[in-house]
Amino acid sequence: MTDALDRINRDLEEASPALFRLLSPLGRRSVFPPGIPFQAAEARGKAYNGTIGQITDGHGGAIPLPSLAAGLAALDAGGPLGAAARDRALLYSPVEGMPEVRRLWRDRQRRDAPHGAPSSLPLVVAGLTHALSLIADLFAGEGRAVAVAEPFWGNYRQTFTVRNGARLLGAPAYRDGRFNPRAWSEALAPLPAGEPALAILNFPSNPGGYSPTPGERRTLVDGLLAEAERRPLLVVCDDAYAGLVYDDAVPRRSPFWDLVGRHPDLVPVKVDGATKELSFFGGRVGFLTVPFEPGSPPAAALESKVKFLLRATIGSPVAASQALVAQALGSATLEQEIEAVRRLLAGRVEVLRAALAGCDPALLVPLPFNAGCFALVELAAGSGTERAGVDPEALRRHLLEHHDTGLISIRPRFVRLAHCSVDAADLPELVRRLERGAAEVAAG
Amino acid sequence: MTDALDRINRDLEEASPALFRLLSPLGRRSVFPPGIPFQAAEARGKAYNGTIGQITDGHGGAIPLPSLAAGLAALDAGGPLGAAARDRALLYSPVEGMPEVRRLWRDRQRRDAPHGAPSSLPLVVAGLTHALSLIADLFAGEGRAVAVAEPFWGNYRQTFTVRNGARLLGAPAYRDGRFNPRAWSEALAPLPAGEPALAILNFPSNPGGYSPTPGERRTLVDGLLAEAERRPLLVVCDDAYAGLVYDDAVPRRSPFWDLVGRHPDLVPVKVDGATKELSFFGGRVGFLTVPFEPGSPPAAALESKVKFLLRATIGSPVAASQALVAQALGSATLEQEIEAVRRLLAGRVEVLRAALAGCDPALLVPLPFNAGCFALVELAAGSGTERAGVDPEALRRHLLEHHDTGLISIRPRFVRLAHCSVDAADLPELVRRLERGAAEVAAG
Repeated sequence: MTDALDRINRDLEEASPALFRLLSPLGRRSVFPPGIPFQAAEARGKAYNGTIGQITDGHGGAIPLPSLAAGLAALDAGGPLGAAARDRALLYSPVEGMPEVRRLWRDRQRRDAPHGAPSSLPLVVAGLTHALSLIADLFAGEGRAVAVAEPFWGNYRQTFTVRNGARLLGAPAYRDGRFNPRAWSEALAPLPAGEPALAILNFPSNPGGYSPTPGERRTLVDGLLAEAERRPLLVVCDDAYAGLVYDDAVPRRSPFWDLVGRHPDLVPVKVDGATKELSFFGGRVGFLTVPFEPGSPPAAALESKVKFLLRATIGSPVAASQALVAQALGSATLEQEIEAVRRLLAGRVEVLRAALAGCDPALLVPLPFNAGCFALVELAAGSGTERAGVDPEALRRHLLEHHDTGLISIRPRFVRLAHCSVDAADLPELVRRLERGAAEVAAG
Repeated sequence: MTDALDRINRDLEEASPALFRLLSPLGRRSVFPPGIPFQAAEARGKAYNGTIGQITDGHGGAIPLPSLAAGLAALDAGGPLGAAARDRALLYSPVEGMPEVRRLWRDRQRRDAPHGAPSSLPLVVAGLTHALSLIADLFAGEGRAVAVAEPFWGNYRQTFTVRNGARLLGAPAYRDGRFNPRAWSEALAPLPAGEPALAILNFPSNPGGYSPTPGERRTLVDGLLAEAERRPLLVVCDDAYAGLVYDDAVPRRSPFWDLVGRHPDLVPVKVDGATKELSFFGGRVGFLTVPFEPGSPPAAALESKVKFLLRATIGSPVAASQALVAQALGSATLEQEIEAVRRLLAGRVEVLRAALAGCDPALLVPLPFNAGCFALVELAAGSGTERAGVDPEALRRHLLEHHDTGLISIRPRFVRLAHCSVDAADLPELVRRLERGAAEVAAG
């Protein structure tokens, strides 16, 4: 990545010294990272492609929710709703989002809310990353500590660290092959008492495909409450994959609802959206929700701040997609349609678990997965030091070149497999290729 | 504005001292400004509403381009393009935008290009403000000088100054009631030689509704070229209203094409989009174009930097709207449809000029307007100091309260009138109310 940055900066300086001098400090350190979109682009067209976290039929086709797809026809002026629906899609949205979308999404969020737990009207933003980026702008300037469990979604690094100058504090999300619910408290432990910090929770997780059991969740929440005794703590609940849980014993509820009102120095904020929940990846409709009643002074104050940043970064959120989301949220069959997608992925998870269970544990060990869009595989560390094992990036390149297969590598020793975009029938062969590739790379 | 900021910060601190302590410096200074969206929200439902810069039928309805509206039906899986078109709208766009959209938009941009002038494939972003915000991130950090002609679109302040810490250097866009093509050189004159700077050109202008004549354009360009002798200069061509020119003697070409390749230390970048050019306000499809050949090292370097920021701020651009834009750009009748919108607005401009010509110049003086979506009116300065005249914000409130009329106030002494969203038949009465209101406020 540093090499790539040096190269593009040199290219710019050679082509236009003036332009190079004009770059801001942020401009100078900007470079597109070799992360998920980069790796996904390299995997385009491969026979087996488990790179992208979008739900497809396994052959690149969307799985549209019928209620959302119906909206496309409804937006046509010849459709049942006529010109008014079309106008709404073509004209500006209010900066804070369409009132109907905000109200309907809040109702949906609050199905899981404990009685009396406050939550604002969600602000509509341009997808979940935009919500994270707004939170980074508001709360994570230069040097601010942000606790994450490792491995984490690489875009947290782009948004919080490279762009905004915060520093990520990590601790292992897994210990001895099991989920570690103390990761966030462990990450924050070295931080001096009194220093404000952020923590990012992401359940179901990316890249882990994991959601904690009730016992693990209690441990996790207790750890955060204990941290709030030591410092102001903002807990970002990245609920991108909300609802996609495949184990009946695991709660689907957002951790936001476990944290609201629990401690005066712990402030949870909720990030969610239509991207995964309504299978509308290309829509860019995300939401940012704060733990205060609609219309209350702190809700209004935060709304004012977010609207300023929203206005200064993207003007207003996309109306065309909001119009489709509004249609879908008004449908009586929406929840059944969402459940059908969950069941489809649950079926893939079953197939994938069986395939991974047959792998040689001396080569790769699947970490527990019960939720979301992914499975995470840990590569054997080798007999000597950690570096003696299979390098995931070397394995990824090997799979692309010799096995017509695309997966995501995460250093130091993980491979992410997106079952959400692979047909169940293809998963056993994909795992076979992964295992064979790992054996070949290990053998040198 | 400071009052509003103090109030919301106090509200937050009272409700949650922890949350207040968690705010970043940017978070602490963020507050939604009393600018155009704020004033437009106050004007909702007024009989005469000339606040918003979106093109409507004058009664709140969209004026959809038939080729774009047809796309809505086409995206339906039952439509002529079937599931593939629908899938494209529902799934993720590449981070840099859809190849077809980028190619077709570039072809359209280059109709006005001088032979051999280099321009990149445009990067697709979330509307024009997003392009500006990406430019601010790349080139306008703390303290960077940004030259603008006053009055300017208020969002430049939010994006460049409040959010990014750059400083705006202004000079009057009008002198003695005429456009001042030397405004940018005048603004930069006090800056020490060698210090890099940005300049923002916006033609047709917001709030001015003006595009320079050939002679004025030459003066303007010469002034910028002279500045480039003194410093590295990035010239941002904000072409939001491209093509909307109502005077045949005034060039419609973007100033980007007058600046490309003219001076090694002057780098023009082009910001444009479907928002106004395709009357797709709610779509949030904007473009960012740099003056280098597609695939050249500097184009690739800047694409890498922009894609990093795009990934870190919004993940990827909206696919649903891009699918509609792709449909429209492929239509053989698109340019005629755009021309029909231009002619509609040209008709309104004619009516508006006649109405304003009848106003008492002791109360208000229309500044020259020949392009875009707006007319700008200068309020009489009064007989004594400037402050003795009519305050535009006082006039705006008076019009809302007593004349059922919404307009935008711009201090120190301007009112912006958006003819793009007012029926031609209503413009004379709107102007009568403006004049009567100004007389009443002047009389105290």
